Amino acid sequence: MFIDDLPTPCLLIERRRLEANLARMQATAEAQGVALRPHVKTHKSVRLARWQRERGARGLTVATVDEAEVFVAAGFEDVRLAYPVVGAERHARLQRLADRARISFCVDTVAGAEAASAAWAGAGRRADVLVEIDVGHGRTGVPWHHADAEVLARRVAALPGLCLAGILTHEGQAYHGPVHDAEDEAGALRRVARETVGRMLDVAVGWRAAGVPGVEPGAFALSIGSTPSMAGFENAGRDGFRITEIRPGNYVFNDATQVGLGSARWADCALTVLATVISKRRDPTGRERFFLDAGKKVLTADGGYGTDGYGRLLYNARTMTPLPHARLTALSEEHGWGVVPGGAPFDVGDRVRIVPNHACVTVHTQDEVYLVDGDTVIEALPVDARGRRRISGRGGE
Amino acid sequence: MFIDDLPTPCLLIERRRLEANLARMQATAEAQGVALRPHVKTHKSVRLARWQRERGARGLTVATVDEAEVFVAAGFEDVRLAYPVVGAERHARLQRLADRARISFCVDTVAGAEAASAAWAGAGRRADVLVEIDVGHGRTGVPWHHADAEVLARRVAALPGLCLAGILTHEGQAYHGPVHDAEDEAGALRRVARETVGRMLDVAVGWRAAGVPGVEPGAFALSIGSTPSMAGFENAGRDGFRITEIRPGNYVFNDATQVGLGSARWADCALTVLATVISKRRDPTGRERFFLDAGKKVLTADGGYGTDGYGRLLYNARTMTPLPHARLTALSEEHGWGVVPGGAPFDVGDRVRIVPNHACVTVHTQDEVYLVDGDTVIEALPVDARGRRRISGRGGE
Repeated sequence: MFIDDLPTPCLLIERRRLEANLARMQATAEAQGVALRPHVKTHKSVRLARWQRERGARGLTVATVDEAEVFVAAGFEDVRLAYPVVGAERHARLQRLADRARISFCVDTVAGAEAASAAWAGAGRRADVLVEIDVGHGRTGVPWHHADAEVLARRVAALPGLCLAGILTHEGQAYHGPVHDAEDEAGALRRVARETVGRMLDVAVGWRAAGVPGVEPGAFALSIGSTPSMAGFENAGRDGFRITEIRPGNYVFNDATQVGLGSARWADCALTVLATVISKRRDPTGRERFFLDAGKKVLTADGGYGTDGYGRLLYNARTMTPLPHARLTALSEEHGWGVVPGGAPFDVGDRVRIVPNHACVTVHTQDEVYLVDGDTVIEALPVDARGRRRISGRGGE
Repeated sequence: MFIDDLPTPCLLIERRRLEANLARMQATAEAQGVALRPHVKTHKSVRLARWQRERGARGLTVATVDEAEVFVAAGFEDVRLAYPVVGAERHARLQRLADRARISFCVDTVAGAEAASAAWAGAGRRADVLVEIDVGHGRTGVPWHHADAEVLARRVAALPGLCLAGILTHEGQAYHGPVHDAEDEAGALRRVARETVGRMLDVAVGWRAAGVPGVEPGAFALSIGSTPSMAGFENAGRDGFRITEIRPGNYVFNDATQVGLGSARWADCALTVLATVISKRRDPTGRERFFLDAGKKVLTADGGYGTDGYGRLLYNARTMTPLPHARLTALSEEHGWGVVPGGAPFDVGDRVRIVPNHACVTVHTQDEVYLVDGDTVIEALPVDARGRRRISGRGGE
């Protein structure tokens, strides 16, 4: 089967680019002496997670209980939720998974920790819990420099049913780009990586000095992760503590945002949207506009640092030749439209590819993606962990 | 079952609001003497389309062949693709559907029309084709005032395998809001509706005067459609021609964009995202921030005219009380975060609802949605026409 046989729009994964991306991040983990615990939110694919494991990944990271259920059912034995788990129903589902796999999750509030304790101790069980730390992103997690962090750690260590297993952060500020004129993109990634490592060490060293129970080098996890910050990661240690694991997700595919941030090249982008040119005409200013059958329902409205429009156009679909001046300027649900200054080298009925701005949300729009080698379709990969049906009794797997 | 029993995030449809929205648009169609041919892209639900039909809708509108296949399989006998259909594979699939239902589609280029003719005449068949007209949106469709429109109409009328059945437009400029300071939102919708009707009449009257075959009042479809423009729609006729059908889609649910445009009230918004508060803390400026388990993978990054942030927060989940000053300021994949000046009246573990910015893309993230009446869950509605699997042999139905 060839890509010309696939209905559009659909998602293609270039096998050779994917393989290179998997190998590169595994090599980073090994060079820095950390476990690679990849975040499966990006692909939600059991087959792809197995390839990550075969290449050396140790354990998986997930964001949701849905994802945890799919991957435990597929035989993965060590699943960490990089997410503050809140709600009795979620804890009950995780307890069922804990019969078959090592499950760990985050807390970032005393209220969340107390509810987790009630759920796990109430069931006569004990869970590995990581305190989520905010090292500068501003999302969930206790700010690294705030006294609340140690208060929460002591509470977790003291509560029945919980075991204080480590600290975890998502250094999402790596997606913000340079913060002042004297900093370039590569410098920004190095700064974020250095800050992340330094702030996580501050927390661990500080807690040990303060006598928080269980905080000892070796046994205590220091978990960080984002694809862009890995480009600047150096595993400096302090007082016996070191970063113990990294949790990037996007690196398997990369996308226009990673290229904008300087953490990937266009040739590292394994995921593309295959689309058909459905219309073409000159607009009132004389510019040639083109229209594709790929809109928000596949590319999504997502942007990101350094992106321009809704993805980068590759002409043609077989050779993946970029068309640098083309811009995909607008999307509606099932239409993408753009301009090519000087005229487009494609006609109605031709096919093009687009590197999306954000691979993770793009994959989430689909039930399956296609692994390809050039114009040959190798196999369909189901997006196993998306869209699970609840009360009508059909899982998404 | 109650909404407290549903895992979050998930989508709720308020039955009474839905019923009122269905009745209101049906009444508009009847008052204006047009067929309501609802666009099912918004809900992609067979059950919901049946309710539309029971209340008087005549035929369905779809954007994709996938959608056409699902609704024809469910017994709908008159399906129109409001989309320029390009590609031999699409025409072959439509021909199979044409054995069981009345299928019509759009063309907006001579190349597209010639390829459609080759596909249908080559199979010894004939298709009803509408020329897509652009009445000012700037997306697909031949501009209403351009000589290319008549050239295309003559070509469609002359080509074997095609029957020139009408003209169709999507007046998407209704989503742009006022275009000058002296215009308010309601005025903008009235202007767009008036322009749309007038420009479609210009085309039909002009083509008949020019002797384009088959352009006669009564038999010739004049199809318009967008939810906001329906708020200003008055079916003025000319020389025997009138608008024959409307194709709104979003009206079944409405959303924050419709409220911004003035085409719906908050109390008309039937679709909400049910979410759990997963974290809460004061940020460095002393403002209380809250974090929800609803991010881009359910709300999407979509914006829209008059929206602010990523949707409107309703506190609490049962009473749907709005929290006017709360803002959902940022989303990542599985997190939504925001601020409530003065402090949030909810705690970690509480549930809230959010009216999304754009209902159609929000529904597309899910495999099922829940019809509710207050806090009682009535039933699960499968999102039948999303995410169909291709070469792995599993349909999305």
